[in-house]
Amino acid sequence: MALRVLFAARDALWSEYESPLTAAFADLGLDVDLARDHAPDVTDYIIYAPHDGLEDFSPYVNCKAIFSLWAGVERIVTNRTLTQPLAKMVNPDLTAGMVEWVTGHVMRHHLGMDRHILDQSGTWDPVVPPLAQDRPVVVLGLGTLGIACAQTLARLGFPVRGWSRRTKSVDGVVCYSGDKGLRIALEGAEIAVLLLPDTPGTTNILNTETLGLLARGAFIINPGRGPLIDDRALLRALGDGQIAHATLDVFRVEPLPKDHPYWAHPKVTVTPHIAAETRPETAAFEVARNLAGFEKGEPLQNLVDRSVGY
Amino acid sequence: MALRVLFAARDALWSEYESPLTAAFADLGLDVDLARDHAPDVTDYIIYAPHDGLEDFSPYVNCKAIFSLWAGVERIVTNRTLTQPLAKMVNPDLTAGMVEWVTGHVMRHHLGMDRHILDQSGTWDPVVPPLAQDRPVVVLGLGTLGIACAQTLARLGFPVRGWSRRTKSVDGVVCYSGDKGLRIALEGAEIAVLLLPDTPGTTNILNTETLGLLARGAFIINPGRGPLIDDRALLRALGDGQIAHATLDVFRVEPLPKDHPYWAHPKVTVTPHIAAETRPETAAFEVARNLAGFEKGEPLQNLVDRSVGY
Repeated sequence: MALRVLFAARDALWSEYESPLTAAFADLGLDVDLARDHAPDVTDYIIYAPHDGLEDFSPYVNCKAIFSLWAGVERIVTNRTLTQPLAKMVNPDLTAGMVEWVTGHVMRHHLGMDRHILDQSGTWDPVVPPLAQDRPVVVLGLGTLGIACAQTLARLGFPVRGWSRRTKSVDGVVCYSGDKGLRIALEGAEIAVLLLPDTPGTTNILNTETLGLLARGAFIINPGRGPLIDDRALLRALGDGQIAHATLDVFRVEPLPKDHPYWAHPKVTVTPHIAAETRPETAAFEVARNLAGFEKGEPLQNLVDRSVGY
Repeated sequence: MALRVLFAARDALWSEYESPLTAAFADLGLDVDLARDHAPDVTDYIIYAPHDGLEDFSPYVNCKAIFSLWAGVERIVTNRTLTQPLAKMVNPDLTAGMVEWVTGHVMRHHLGMDRHILDQSGTWDPVVPPLAQDRPVVVLGLGTLGIACAQTLARLGFPVRGWSRRTKSVDGVVCYSGDKGLRIALEGAEIAVLLLPDTPGTTNILNTETLGLLARGAFIINPGRGPLIDDRALLRALGDGQIAHATLDVFRVEPLPKDHPYWAHPKVTVTPHIAAETRPETAAFEVARNLAGFEKGEPLQNLVDRSVGY
């Protein structure tokens, strides 16, 4: 009998995912009935992205696992009706896209490109930028994305420090953890990249105090989650020169409202949540492969640890 | 007695190098009398960069070696009065700086950053850029700098083709050579990076015909030499959309004249010859270390082979 897989996400995602998912299940030889309206008690699996339609997971008594289409699971992990195993999205294209976006914006600030992009008035002022080896970078968050970004930046020559709540070890990166480690990791760093999950422990992790630990004139790059930054503290630090520029891809409210001070701020670059996107073709394949393995008795990949929230 | 070291280069370089050289000699415990006016017959060593002041090396009968501050020695190696051993500048910082500048501007165009840097009017239009793996890049020139840039871009995920006049082999890069190879290397490439030397054979190597081989809407990045590009052909290609944008660091005349059409062109970014520079601190140390080793009887490093000219 076909596995009943419920696609629980908004309409736009259904139109993007229906055909890649169908193809991926077929490629893997799985007999799947993929639909948006299976009855809860006969649903075998749920493919999920945050939306208004599904708030109560308790009727899905026979659901063996839930596959998030998003890497960040903060909106589902706190749902008290959720008892089923939850797998987050880990996707090589998502990682590649994030590494490219982060590398690009780190290099942009490192090289001081904006000066040339914004001013082509004819001033020949050959100021050679410092080398990466003299520009300490800190990456907050050492999940799949943080590790990939940190290692790429280290290979480009930057001295890279990484920080995570729990102790980790990453080749080529000086790793810190815990509250004390955070202070050491931030101290004197000239570029800070935020790739932490959104949890109660990471809310406003960049605030007046922690921003003050960075080198004067540091750059902030946030492709992680909006709540990682205390927005008012950042605006103050931009105003007084402690922070030279912030490039922000994620916000507490998205789309970022037109009247938000970040838009008009000359030292802030807003990008519209484009740093990394789950691409339907490869994401569909990751879900199908994980589901197929689980059906064969293999452990669920990328299982979310509820106790820590990611 | 102090070693008499003659600094033979123009005034601007003296003001950049005097103090780093003095510091480097002191660090290495060398007793050096560094000056710009030692008498030829008592000069022990010459530190040299092309300028109008020193054309005849024959009076320097006691000079043990000459250290070039430049990597390219084409202007001194052909001097028939030169009989002293000549060491060229080999400087890891020059390569690192070039790789960083090229990587940064490739990523900038790849990610379409300018849109966000120039327009912060509040439009939330999440268009996710393609991945590097889908963006073919061609690097023209496979000397030390070209190879380093090509390999770095390949490691970032770009499919990279390299081209050089003579056949070369570079790990991770598909290499082409010769006139036919040039056409294949350019065909359909979306980003072209120019790192060729300026020779009669490379003048206007990017012209109407070769620009037309690139993918429509390609990006040109030139940190190599100004004459590599037929400027009028590039302006036409920018006008008709064949080329989307050109980022140019080098020009036939530098500083680029204020009224040159490149400055005001919305699809051209001029940078003032900053892509890579021999940095006085590290270059001074390289010279001092080489000189100190030679004084101790070690062979001269980076010795120029006159028979091949480099």
